[in-house]
Amino acid sequence: MRRAPKVSPVMRAATAGRFFEDFTLGEKIAHATPRTLDNGDVALYQALYGGRHILNSSLPAARAAGYADRPLENWLVFHIVFGKTVPDISRNAIANLGYAEGRFLAPVYCGDTLSAVSEVMGLRENSNGKSGIVMVRTRGLNQNHVPIVEYVRWVMVNKRDPSAPAPDPVMPHLADAVAPGDLVPPPENIAALDHTQSGSDRFFDDYAIDSFIDHSDGVTLEDSEHMLATRAYQNTARVHFDGLAQQNTRFGKRLIYGGHIISHARAMSFNGLENALSVAGLNAGTHAAPAFAGDTIYAGTRIVDKAVIAGVAGVGALRIRHFVTKNKTVGDIAARLADADSGSGRPEELLLDLDCWVWMARG
Amino acid sequence: MRRAPKVSPVMRAATAGRFFEDFTLGEKIAHATPRTLDNGDVALYQALYGGRHILNSSLPAARAAGYADRPLENWLVFHIVFGKTVPDISRNAIANLGYAEGRFLAPVYCGDTLSAVSEVMGLRENSNGKSGIVMVRTRGLNQNHVPIVEYVRWVMVNKRDPSAPAPDPVMPHLADAVAPGDLVPPPENIAALDHTQSGSDRFFDDYAIDSFIDHSDGVTLEDSEHMLATRAYQNTARVHFDGLAQQNTRFGKRLIYGGHIISHARAMSFNGLENALSVAGLNAGTHAAPAFAGDTIYAGTRIVDKAVIAGVAGVGALRIRHFVTKNKTVGDIAARLADADSGSGRPEELLLDLDCWVWMARG
Amino acid sequence: MRRAPKVSPVMRAATAGRFFEDFTLGEKIAHATPRTLDNGDVALYQALYGGRHILNSSLPAARAAGYADRPLENWLVFHIVFGKTVPDISRNAIANLGYAEGRFLAPVYCGDTLSAVSEVMGLRENSNGKSGIVMVRTRGLNQNHVPIVEYVRWVMVNKRDPSAPAPDPVMPHLADAVAPGDLVPPPENIAALDHTQSGSDRFFDDYAIDSFIDHSDGVTLEDSEHMLATRAYQNTARVHFDGLAQQNTRFGKRLIYGGHIISHARAMSFNGLENALSVAGLNAGTHAAPAFAGDTIYAGTRIVDKAVIAGVAGVGALRIRHFVTKNKTVGDIAARLADADSGSGRPEELLLDLDCWVWMARG
Repeated sequence: MRRAPKVSPVMRAATAGRFFEDFTLGEKIAHATPRTLDNGDVALYQALYGGRHILNSSLPAARAAGYADRPLENWLVFHIVFGKTVPDISRNAIANLGYAEGRFLAPVYCGDTLSAVSEVMGLRENSNGKSGIVMVRTRGLNQNHVPIVEYVRWVMVNKRDPSAPAPDPVMPHLADAVAPGDLVPPPENIAALDHTQSGSDRFFDDYAIDSFIDHSDGVTLEDSEHMLATRAYQNTARVHFDGLAQQNTRFGKRLIYGGHIISHARAMSFNGLENALSVAGLNAGTHAAPAFAGDTIYAGTRIVDKAVIAGVAGVGALRIRHFVTKNKTVGDIAARLADADSGSGRPEELLLDLDCWVWMARG
Repeated sequence: MRRAPKVSPVMRAATAGRFFEDFTLGEKIAHATPRTLDNGDVALYQALYGGRHILNSSLPAARAAGYADRPLENWLVFHIVFGKTVPDISRNAIANLGYAEGRFLAPVYCGDTLSAVSEVMGLRENSNGKSGIVMVRTRGLNQNHVPIVEYVRWVMVNKRDPSAPAPDPVMPHLADAVAPGDLVPPPENIAALDHTQSGSDRFFDDYAIDSFIDHSDGVTLEDSEHMLATRAYQNTARVHFDGLAQQNTRFGKRLIYGGHIISHARAMSFNGLENALSVAGLNAGTHAAPAFAGDTIYAGTRIVDKAVIAGVAGVGALRIRHFVTKNKTVGDIAARLADADSGSGRPEELLLDLDCWVWMARG
Repeated sequence: MRRAPKVSPVMRAATAGRFFEDFTLGEKIAHATPRTLDNGDVALYQALYGGRHILNSSLPAARAAGYADRPLENWLVFHIVFGKTVPDISRNAIANLGYAEGRFLAPVYCGDTLSAVSEVMGLRENSNGKSGIVMVRTRGLNQNHVPIVEYVRWVMVNKRDPSAPAPDPVMPHLADAVAPGDLVPPPENIAALDHTQSGSDRFFDDYAIDSFIDHSDGVTLEDSEHMLATRAYQNTARVHFDGLAQQNTRFGKRLIYGGHIISHARAMSFNGLENALSVAGLNAGTHAAPAFAGDTIYAGTRIVDKAVIAGVAGVGALRIRHFVTKNKTVGDIAARLADADSGSGRPEELLLDLDCWVWMARG
C-alpha cells in the first residue's frame, strides 16, 4: 500500500509512488488491488494475442489433461501479478533490469482472485547517488492464499532526495536457471493429449538442443491494443498511456509494456512449438529495446536444454529462449542473433530475449 | 420503439429516429433492446479504462462488503441504459445539454438483463422554430423490473418540419443536487473493507471540502477504443463511427461519446480517491468540449460537500466534481479551472465537468 | 493437422501450410484447435460490431423464444469454424473464391467447444500450372459432436512445385441457394417475441421481394479492431497482421479479413431488419474488393425471396442480399448496385455481396 499523504485543500499530485530510499531490506509489501479474473479476461487475451495452445483453448482438452477447468494463460497470470506491483515498486523506475527464478506454481481458473506480495531482497545505490537498484521477490496468490506464481525482478529506481543516505548494499546471487526438478509439473494425466487437436505431432523427443525455430508470422503493433492489454493488467505505468508527455522524452511516443511483447511471443511460438502446453518457469528476460505502435514484430525460439523429470509422465521440460525482433524478421538477423549473448553483439532490432521453461508433450 | 414506416420496394433510409415534434409531454417510451451483461462486459470495461476500485475488482472484497457478487461499475450500467435511449431520444439531437437527479438504485451483477424506459417531462421549442429542448427522466430496470439507475437529461433536438406547431412550454425545475438522504446506501457491512487491499488509508475524514486532487496520469484517446466502448453500450449515434461523414462537419473527425470520458475520469480518480467505493448519484454534468482520437486527457477532482447519513455505517457521501482536461494537465490550468463555474471563464481545455456523489469508506 | 517436418538444428520456417498438390479428393481434414467460447467472446463481439438483435442481446428474450440460453451470434460461430480451417486450407491461398450451401444447424451457447472438419470435394488445377482450385465442405461441431454449421467454400491455392502432376479435375455443381425446407428452424415458441423490445413492428409480411433497405449508418474501419476480431477467431492468415510485409504487396497495407465485413453487415442491418432474428443459411458470398483500415463502410440489403415453411411457426425465411460499400454510401451508388450481378458492372466501391437466408419474425 502506498503511504499516502493526507489530502489538503491545495492542488497536489495524488500518488507519487515509492522512491529508492523508501525501500527497506526484508520489507514485505502487500500490493493493492486484488483482482478477480473470469472468462471475459480470457476472451480479451485471446483477441489481443491469438493463441492456439490447446489447454487454454479447449475446455474438454484441459479436463482430459487433468485440469479442473481451462487454465488461464500463464503470462496473463504473470502480467496481472506484475501489474499489482507497479504502483509500489516501479512507478519511479528508470529501467526494468531483469527477471529470474520465476515459476508457475498452480493453475489459475476463471473466478479466481489474484493478489500479490513482494519482499525486498536486494538494494544497492548507484555510484551517481541519484538512483539505486531494488530487487524483489514477488509472489502471486489466489483467494485461498495458494501461491500461483513467483519470480524475482530488479529495477533501477530514482531517489527522491539525492542526499538521502545509501543503504548497505545487498544484492543476492540468483540462479542462472530454475532447476528442472523445482518446476511444478502439470496434472498427471496430461498424456491424454490428442495431437490431431493440438495442431502438431512434434513432441519432446523431436526437439534437439540448439535447434532454432523461426515462427514466421509478423504482427504490427497498435497503441489501442497495448493500452487495452496494459489496463486489463491494471498496470498504470504512465509511459504506456500518456502520448503527450511522451513527446517530451527521448522516445517521443508511448512505450509498449514489455509484457505485451512476451505474450505475443508465446502466441507466435505456436507455429513450431504447438505442444508446448504451458509455461513452467522464467529463468531470465531482457527487454532489449523499446517497442512502439507501428513496429512489426517477429519471433524465433532456440532450444537451450531439455529435462525428463522422474515421476512426471506425459511431458518433459524444455528450456527455450524466445527472441522477438522488430522491423526485421528473425530470419533476416539470424546470424546476428547468435551473438545476442554478448552484450555488444546484440542486434539493435532485438526487442526481447526471454529464457523460460515450458512443458512439452512427449506424445 | 421507433415508429417505423412500412418497407416499400424503393430505396430509403431505414431508421430516422424521432424529431422534436414526435415527443409528447408525459409520454412513456419503452426502449429496445434489453441487454444481458456478463463478465465479458466487465473485462472489456476493465481493459478500456483500467479501473482499480476494489469492489469492482475483487469478488471476495465485494462479498465481504455485503454484495451478492462483484457489482458492475456504475458508469458501465449508466452507459448501457443511456445507449438504449439514443435511437428514440437523441438520434437527431444537436446537443446533450445536461444531466440531473441521477441515482444508482441497486447493484447490477453479471447475468442481469437491463432495459430502459423514459418519460418525457419537459418540452420547449427554441425561438428559432427549428429545434427544441426535450427533457426526459430515464429509468433502467433489471430483469426483475427492479430500478437500478435513474437520471434526468435534456437534449436539443431538431424539428423535422419547422412549421410543425410548438407545444406548450414545460420545463420542470430540477434539484441542484440529490439530497444525501435520497442516495441509496451500499450494503450495511461495507465497513469490512481492508485498506491494504483497497490501495489507500485515506478515508472520508481525510477529505476537506474545497480540497482539490490532481489525479496526475494522462491517457491518449484512440478511435478504436471509443468505438469499442460505444458499441459495447449499443449506442449507435452516428457521429462516433462514421469518419467519412464527419469530414464534412465542423469537427472534421469522429466525436468521442461523452460517456467514454466519464468512465476514464472515474478510473483516473483512483489516484487520490482510492476508497470512493462506488458512485451514488449524478447531480450535474457538462460535456464542455468535444474529444477526439489523439487528445490526451487528464483529470482532477474537487471535494464539494460531504454528508454522514444517519443509519449508514462504514461510508459517507462525498460530493465531488471531476474535471477532465485535454492536452493540458489539470495542474497547468488549475487557476482557470477555479473559474469553471462562470460560463465565460471556462477554460477551452476543459472537456468534462461532472458533479456526482460517491460513497467514501470511513476507514 | 499440418504435416510438420521434424525440427532440425537449422533455421527454418515453422509452418508452411498446405499447397495445392497436398490435397486429395475425398480426404477429410480434422482441424486444430478446438475452442471453448464463453460470454467473454460474446462481449468482445458486441464491442466490435454493436449488434442489437434481440435474441443475442437478451437472455430472457432468448429463453422466452425457446432457446436454452442466449445463442451466440451466427457469424461469430461461422468465423470460429472458418478460422480453424485457415492453417490447413487457405494459408497459401491466393483468393477466397466463394461460399455456398451454408446452413446454421444448431444454436451455440456459452461454454460450448467448437471444432471443425473439412472434406475435399473438388480439385482443379489452373491452366497456368502454378495453382489450382480447392473446394471443401466444412462442418463445425460442438463438444457433443453435434453439427452446428456447415458450408462449402472454394479457394485458389498455390502449388509448391509447378511440375507436380495435376489431379483429375472434379468440381461439383453447387445449389444456387439452400432450399428453404432444408433450413433448420428456430425453437417452436419463437412467436413469443415482444416487438417493443425487439426494436420494430416490421415483420415478415412487411417485406416485399425486390425492396431495398438502406441501413444508413457508416463505420470507419480500424487496424486494431480487425486484428482483435481475427485473432479472436484464431484466424492466423498473415495478410491481416503483418503490416511490414504487406508494404511489399500491391495493397501496401494489412488486408481486413472478409468475415469482419460480414459481421459489420449483420449488425448494421438491424436498422430496417430488426426482427431478422437469426441467420439461417449462406447461399453465396463474394468479397468483391479488399477493405483496409481507414475505409468507411455502409450497408444495404435487398429482399430476394421469401418462404413460409410448413410446420414452422412464428418466423418465415427471408432470402436477402447484403451489400457493403466503402467510401460511398449505399445510396450514392444505388443505381450501379443494381448492376452488381453482371461481373463487369460491379461498382468498384462494392466490398461484399452476401446472399443468405434469415429467420424473420412474423409478428
